[in-house]
Amino acid sequence: MGTSFYKKRLNSAQYVSGILKGDRILLSKAITLIESKLPSDNALAENVLEQLLPHTGKSLRIGITGVPGVGKSSFIESFGKFLTSLRKKTAVLTIDPSSQRSKGSILGDKTRMEELANDPMAFIRPSAAGDTLGGVNSKSRETILLCEAAGFEVIIVETVGVGQSETAVRGIVDFFLLLMLAGAGDELQGIKKGIMEMADAIAVTKADGDNIRKSELAKREYQNALHMFPPNENGWYPKVVTCSSLNKTGIQEIWDIILQYEEIMKSKGYFQSNRQQQNISWMKEAISYYLQTAFYNTDEVKKMIALKTKEVGNGTTPAIMAAKEMLSLFFQQPGNPDEV
Amino acid sequence: MGTSFYKKRLNSAQYVSGILKGDRILLSKAITLIESKLPSDNALAENVLEQLLPHTGKSLRIGITGVPGVGKSSFIESFGKFLTSLRKKTAVLTIDPSSQRSKGSILGDKTRMEELANDPMAFIRPSAAGDTLGGVNSKSRETILLCEAAGFEVIIVETVGVGQSETAVRGIVDFFLLLMLAGAGDELQGIKKGIMEMADAIAVTKADGDNIRKSELAKREYQNALHMFPPNENGWYPKVVTCSSLNKTGIQEIWDIILQYEEIMKSKGYFQSNRQQQNISWMKEAISYYLQTAFYNTDEVKKMIALKTKEVGNGTTPAIMAAKEMLSLFFQQPGNPDEV
Repeated sequence: MGTSFYKKRLNSAQYVSGILKGDRILLSKAITLIESKLPSDNALAENVLEQLLPHTGKSLRIGITGVPGVGKSSFIESFGKFLTSLRKKTAVLTIDPSSQRSKGSILGDKTRMEELANDPMAFIRPSAAGDTLGGVNSKSRETILLCEAAGFEVIIVETVGVGQSETAVRGIVDFFLLLMLAGAGDELQGIKKGIMEMADAIAVTKADGDNIRKSELAKREYQNALHMFPPNENGWYPKVVTCSSLNKTGIQEIWDIILQYEEIMKSKGYFQSNRQQQNISWMKEAISYYLQTAFYNTDEVKKMIALKTKEVGNGTTPAIMAAKEMLSLFFQQPGNPDEV
Repeated sequence: MGTSFYKKRLNSAQYVSGILKGDRILLSKAITLIESKLPSDNALAENVLEQLLPHTGKSLRIGITGVPGVGKSSFIESFGKFLTSLRKKTAVLTIDPSSQRSKGSILGDKTRMEELANDPMAFIRPSAAGDTLGGVNSKSRETILLCEAAGFEVIIVETVGVGQSETAVRGIVDFFLLLMLAGAGDELQGIKKGIMEMADAIAVTKADGDNIRKSELAKREYQNALHMFPPNENGWYPKVVTCSSLNKTGIQEIWDIILQYEEIMKSKGYFQSNRQQQNISWMKEAISYYLQTAFYNTDEVKKMIALKTKEVGNGTTPAIMAAKEMLSLFFQQPGNPDEV
């Protein structure tokens, strides 16, 4: 179709048929609608999403995180190219907290995974992390669903391993992979507390050249550390591997671990029940998110919140009283679904 | 005063003056009001609390947790007796998830710390954990404040180290002590993920008799494990000690660590800023809690929630749509502060 077609504002039927055909331009436009701040855009996006819902859920959703410098981009490029070489349509969604402030990192994404970006079997979409959990989750989750409807079989959700976003991402993927560097002792320095415990697997990156021995040591150290924690609730013991994006080693091994995980968890029924729980949590988070949005955007609350926060902080007003005071003002407002 | 006085429904002035005098019966009654489900009781309790607020905040708030069998009661009894021997008025608040179901454990608490329970310098108050974070927090926090107003200088908040409640408790105390057992490898089995990372100190219990060597080994193992994690945001590196409630060893050492922590954190200003943040979080949690309580108690929502949860779970309705559908019903309700 000509570019003129894409310039027009399209209706939901056009989006639906286009996305089901795997049209990346329409997929991108639909994601933009989801990320838009305009309620009208969101409404259209949700309408599209609802029609696409029966065509979603068939992908394998993989979360990948690691501190800056761990080599995330190189790994995802190698891993992604490996997957497309298996003829698996692969989407990469990067949740980048910084991209709220500067669009720079978004441009960055495109170039830092150049090979994959030009791969017809791959789709890379950087997206700004919302400033709220509800925000991050809802948008990222809807984006995953759109990509699935467009026929992507593996969806990689990338986060920077230093922010709040890991827990949120853990709640929207099937498998969580943590990339780690081989350092000199204190291996976990810089990794946010608790992240290691969310991992289904840890990959020690840059295991090449002089770094191989150090990486093997780090691998054992992580194995010992993980050994000290109980297995995940699903009975899975996180695996640790070394890999090199340079020599393309360990990539196949990581994929095999993920497939093994998928097979075991599907046979246990955990895979499905986990997704059900994720959907239900999503609904609850959305409810909580929209309730609080409506509350904090009420004029009366806006007028008081700064003062009340100060009073509660320095202990001159009990937190519960301040809360109830503002809540009573909120509930005196005429309810307005548009607020939501 | 005669028991008849306590039987009457008292007014807030009577509560306030009594609690400031350190009257434990009135303190207990006030805590009961806070834990009551009757709005009128809560209103009275909040009125009392507001008047007492200027007299709160002067205690050292210590959270203590550990899995069943670690010897929490014996430790808290020894630790508590040690504190009262220093003439420190000590309150022990136990947050017991099970006590929601059976009152048994509440009676249990009284007897399992018999010596401390009969100590005139000590006050033991078991309380059922609410079924929500907001619940747990608000009631426990208000109870802490009441105890402070009654002149208690050290307040120990005890939780069972296997539930949801640790994170909540971490958010209402100044110092978090984790009790651990010396086991054979896999030291962390049974401890809920993430709890170890919340600890400001770990005490290996039952370090007596044949157990001493094993406890020293466990201590080193914990030190190594902790060494792998970054220091807490306040720059504090968690300490690990061994102790014995039987031989009363390690108790003084633990108290010294807590005092050292208090001194350093106060000189850094972290102690104060942490409490300010805790108060503000408390207000925000309360807002979120009351908003959701009002939402889920709306008749229209009650009618739909089960069906919507099912639809969202099995993926036939998008989570966001289900949420917005119920939210629009909620906001169409005439606002009613009494709901809150």
